[in-house]
Amino acid sequence: MIIVLKPGISKKQETTILREIRKRGYKPHVMRGVARIVIGAIGDELTHQSLETLGVVFPQIVESVMPVQKRYKLVSREAHPEDSTVRVGDHLIGGKKFHVMAGPCSVESEKQLLTTAAAVKAAGATVLRGGAFKPRTSPYEFQGLGEKGLKLLAKARKETGLAIITELLSENHAELVAEYADIIQIGARNAQNFQLLIAAARTGKPILLKRGLSMKIEEWLLAGEYVLSNENCSLMFCERGIRTFETYTRNTLDLSTIPIIKQESHCPIVIDPSQGAGRADLVKAMCKGAVAMGADALLIEVHPNPAEAWSDGTQQVSLEIFAQIMRELRPLILAAGRE
Amino acid sequence: MIIVLKPGISKKQETTILREIRKRGYKPHVMRGVARIVIGAIGDELTHQSLETLGVVFPQIVESVMPVQKRYKLVSREAHPEDSTVRVGDHLIGGKKFHVMAGPCSVESEKQLLTTAAAVKAAGATVLRGGAFKPRTSPYEFQGLGEKGLKLLAKARKETGLAIITELLSENHAELVAEYADIIQIGARNAQNFQLLIAAARTGKPILLKRGLSMKIEEWLLAGEYVLSNENCSLMFCERGIRTFETYTRNTLDLSTIPIIKQESHCPIVIDPSQGAGRADLVKAMCKGAVAMGADALLIEVHPNPAEAWSDGTQQVSLEIFAQIMRELRPLILAAGRE
Amino acid sequence: MIIVLKPGISKKQETTILREIRKRGYKPHVMRGVARIVIGAIGDELTHQSLETLGVVFPQIVESVMPVQKRYKLVSREAHPEDSTVRVGDHLIGGKKFHVMAGPCSVESEKQLLTTAAAVKAAGATVLRGGAFKPRTSPYEFQGLGEKGLKLLAKARKETGLAIITELLSENHAELVAEYADIIQIGARNAQNFQLLIAAARTGKPILLKRGLSMKIEEWLLAGEYVLSNENCSLMFCERGIRTFETYTRNTLDLSTIPIIKQESHCPIVIDPSQGAGRADLVKAMCKGAVAMGADALLIEVHPNPAEAWSDGTQQVSLEIFAQIMRELRPLILAAGRE
Amino acid sequence: MIIVLKPGISKKQETTILREIRKRGYKPHVMRGVARIVIGAIGDELTHQSLETLGVVFPQIVESVMPVQKRYKLVSREAHPEDSTVRVGDHLIGGKKFHVMAGPCSVESEKQLLTTAAAVKAAGATVLRGGAFKPRTSPYEFQGLGEKGLKLLAKARKETGLAIITELLSENHAELVAEYADIIQIGARNAQNFQLLIAAARTGKPILLKRGLSMKIEEWLLAGEYVLSNENCSLMFCERGIRTFETYTRNTLDLSTIPIIKQESHCPIVIDPSQGAGRADLVKAMCKGAVAMGADALLIEVHPNPAEAWSDGTQQVSLEIFAQIMRELRPLILAAGRE
Repeated sequence: MIIVLKPGISKKQETTILREIRKRGYKPHVMRGVARIVIGAIGDELTHQSLETLGVVFPQIVESVMPVQKRYKLVSREAHPEDSTVRVGDHLIGGKKFHVMAGPCSVESEKQLLTTAAAVKAAGATVLRGGAFKPRTSPYEFQGLGEKGLKLLAKARKETGLAIITELLSENHAELVAEYADIIQIGARNAQNFQLLIAAARTGKPILLKRGLSMKIEEWLLAGEYVLSNENCSLMFCERGIRTFETYTRNTLDLSTIPIIKQESHCPIVIDPSQGAGRADLVKAMCKGAVAMGADALLIEVHPNPAEAWSDGTQQVSLEIFAQIMRELRPLILAAGRE
Repeated sequence: MIIVLKPGISKKQETTILREIRKRGYKPHVMRGVARIVIGAIGDELTHQSLETLGVVFPQIVESVMPVQKRYKLVSREAHPEDSTVRVGDHLIGGKKFHVMAGPCSVESEKQLLTTAAAVKAAGATVLRGGAFKPRTSPYEFQGLGEKGLKLLAKARKETGLAIITELLSENHAELVAEYADIIQIGARNAQNFQLLIAAARTGKPILLKRGLSMKIEEWLLAGEYVLSNENCSLMFCERGIRTFETYTRNTLDLSTIPIIKQESHCPIVIDPSQGAGRADLVKAMCKGAVAMGADALLIEVHPNPAEAWSDGTQQVSLEIFAQIMRELRPLILAAGRE
Repeated sequence: MIIVLKPGISKKQETTILREIRKRGYKPHVMRGVARIVIGAIGDELTHQSLETLGVVFPQIVESVMPVQKRYKLVSREAHPEDSTVRVGDHLIGGKKFHVMAGPCSVESEKQLLTTAAAVKAAGATVLRGGAFKPRTSPYEFQGLGEKGLKLLAKARKETGLAIITELLSENHAELVAEYADIIQIGARNAQNFQLLIAAARTGKPILLKRGLSMKIEEWLLAGEYVLSNENCSLMFCERGIRTFETYTRNTLDLSTIPIIKQESHCPIVIDPSQGAGRADLVKAMCKGAVAMGADALLIEVHPNPAEAWSDGTQQVSLEIFAQIMRELRPLILAAGRE
Repeated sequence: MIIVLKPGISKKQETTILREIRKRGYKPHVMRGVARIVIGAIGDELTHQSLETLGVVFPQIVESVMPVQKRYKLVSREAHPEDSTVRVGDHLIGGKKFHVMAGPCSVESEKQLLTTAAAVKAAGATVLRGGAFKPRTSPYEFQGLGEKGLKLLAKARKETGLAIITELLSENHAELVAEYADIIQIGARNAQNFQLLIAAARTGKPILLKRGLSMKIEEWLLAGEYVLSNENCSLMFCERGIRTFETYTRNTLDLSTIPIIKQESHCPIVIDPSQGAGRADLVKAMCKGAVAMGADALLIEVHPNPAEAWSDGTQQVSLEIFAQIMRELRPLILAAGRE
């Protein structure tokens, strides 16, 4: 911790602060600057009592307190210098091969799901997405088919060989969802629902953790820490847009997260351009940017008839558009050094 | 729904759209404007299939689709033109009397809690706050005393007569928390954890719903709708600051929510200046603004020794400062026409 | 400056950094912490070469660089511990007396302006606002009456004795506007138009500096520094709402700026609830909050017939509503210890 | 305009509104919906008096007023369905060839500039950037070399054949800057300084208009409208990151602007990854994303020795890194169908 004192502090005030720092288990190190005194407090910020409250107790003496250590450990690149990969069935996400997860926003019917599954498989996807439990802004909107939806996903997996990713909404469903899913998705609204993260982690299944609507990257990494520290090392981060003042798009997709997560963490990074833009007509361009910048996978909403989708119809692409996106991505995937 | 067509649409394209609107159960109403055609689609947006996807299916024809109905019902002022009040023990929140809920961020020990409870009671508070289950950004931070904390809160209630408000973090704890609490708090990070909202509502206890970090007011009202539509009409909204680009304060307290919630809804509005600013030195001014603008209650973090608080020490005020705030608020409470 | 080194730095790397710090004119002070080395670089950050680029030159060695000095000087409370006041005609803004500046968004006609001036004067305002040069988002919108508007303002001053505040949009108009205005307003869109700030400061007239739409408080204070460092000490800060994700209001009025500006600076703080909310129906509540929190003055848009206003009609209050606001503010102004 | 009335409006209230709409020059068109009445007001919103104030005059009757027309004309794709190109010397920006503009943040010395110019030319850039007039947050920071900087830029053009782009800060410098520059840059802080936009447009030089820190896309297009409506059709939009809550990067680069500007406007879109991220280590990845998504050009800050840059050293890349970026971009430029 670095403690910056106000200008014109008396010797007595300095002594008071030094005593307090020692009392809390740190060794103070005084630097007399031109304009003010700065104290370095040496000790492990992760195990000692915080010094952040010094400014509250001594408002006349302390100007600011700044931490110097990063707060995340297990997700950090320092803890695991090489890229980690997540095994899903026969696939490794985060390795040489680029992956596409695709499927409808909500599972609506057997026909809708199986048609989509066959089409996305044919176009090159390796994982099928589909919501069985849906978090909806209004209680009057379609809330998902529940377990029936999970069974349809299992059927689609059996028919196509695609792995399954689906969202977990409730601690009480953790076991149920883990029974059917190959990857458990934690949605943006639950990204800091730590009880849910712990319940998901404990199933042992790979976890895809979406970034919250207004989550700082540090908070996102720390939410991931809840997964790794509960003995589950199969974690993927998924950027899906943050909330800003712009209204042309539903969210602002922050593609800078790709190089940043690669730099700070060893976990794979997945991009969701459908939620990211909230507009089907922007999905293709977003996918291209994500591939070129080094993402490990994409998560794309695809529906056989977006106009009649029971949820988020404006952001789902049709089967034809999806196939076209996959074709246009190919040269970029190669140019980015992936398969 | 209002459907705006692109300029220069052919007769045939117009017919296509009209047919589609009728197919979805609405009666179209065509207005030929100077620059383009606008269609009003008459029918209940809450019961009919959405028209929002028209832009996706017919991107060459449709420019934009705008809803005209509000999406919330039970929380709206239209549904209940008079102010509703929430009964907590002998108190009515939302009525003539102004209420203050105060106490530590986390329950830490019997001594800490009972000292605080006695002091805030003496200064005029009617509800004691205190976290037993704490949502923490990092898994390595103090997570609360759990049930032991709840028991201490119950003891403080017995000794002081103060009602108790505490946060619910997990659906699995809903019954346990309801056993001890007089008001269940849903925190900002769980404001769109709908499963938790439903579990909390079903306990029948009054609910204080904090605004999420980046929640639009419409979304907040709709989250409240999850409470009322689960047969619990004791709902209070609590503004606690939204996340913006400003870094001087931890959050930006949006006091305009006071007149807005009063206008849109019949439910009481509570202001939390401690989370709102994240700085103890700004709490007093924030409280004054909230009272003058017509808030029904305040939720203030108070600690006998903020410097040694186990969580959020920088935003908790001392017992002395709290008493001083209460004294300075009195003339403003009267000037605002409250008791 | 504080320079945090990465973990596991070699002795040689440390020497490299120390040499570089000395080369740039600072005295390094090494602290060996548990996890990493931290260096305090002693020297005046305002006069020496910046160390912020150390992380770029030595990315393998340096983790982060943190400044410890505040960047603003003349506007800071440290530079001038007592409140400063701004003299406008016979009035002192920032002193014991609370001031209200009111008038139309745009000057439209003699009748409109004189009617408004007489009414706001009768209700207790001391300054008349009115835009002669208007910054409009679209080039097709009304751009203001220009010099003709200034002449009308002068006439209104002559008739009522009210002082005049009006916006300066162009360096080329600085002398012209200064000829007529008692206070020069710098609008939100020009808050970091430093050339305009310098031109305005050099007229010697009092300056009211609005906060930019997404301006951090530190940047606002530094923009104020452009005024004071150009030998004009009559500066007022004016909060008018920041841009956030919320769409219910046009902007989010950040009332926490009142205690913050009072703490960081000696200059008066004025609140503009009209721009702040963008809705006439929220103005009264916002005014009350501002008074209770200690603002020095209000800037309110008033129009004899808001429905027919040539700009921003939705946020201007009528003469009757203005008079009512002034009546309701009186007890709060007294409760806040002002006249 | 669409006017939504409140539920339960009387016949008399309806008549009042209809009369008012006609009075303002629109033809009303009534639609009786299930929950409320909606009125379409037919007439040109760009030439008639606004109806937006109806809600203020008749708050008991009108719930909301929604515009249906887009406010921008000349910059819109509707006005000019094909891509427009901007001629700069022998180059066409916005055509088949992809362009890179590169150079230092500030012009510091002849040696610094000529070294950079030669290196960026050798690596494939076609335009040299360099600031002679610098907008700085603090008045105590380096403000640029002024005309001396412009002369150095002209010398670099003469030696290398590169075109020159430099920022215009003051209306008073418009002629001076136009004498030296091939492209005039309007910076983010001045993006809504309309007087400056008009002065720049009137020089007849190509204009590169950066997006303001918190500018909505519609506002950006309307600011561009100020250029085109002042008879200058050589306009380029430049995305340089918006301000959000995230602090890991200086700004959040919004790459979705590439497909959006292409859809809404005919003008070229340029991406500035240096300002966009504020971190040299993220520039390469950002460039790749921009190329893959269809940007027309890049604007990159390059310095022979970023550590000693007089401004923004943390975001400038070295000559070596720049050459490497250019090499790695080549396959992506081809994959994106550009030269």
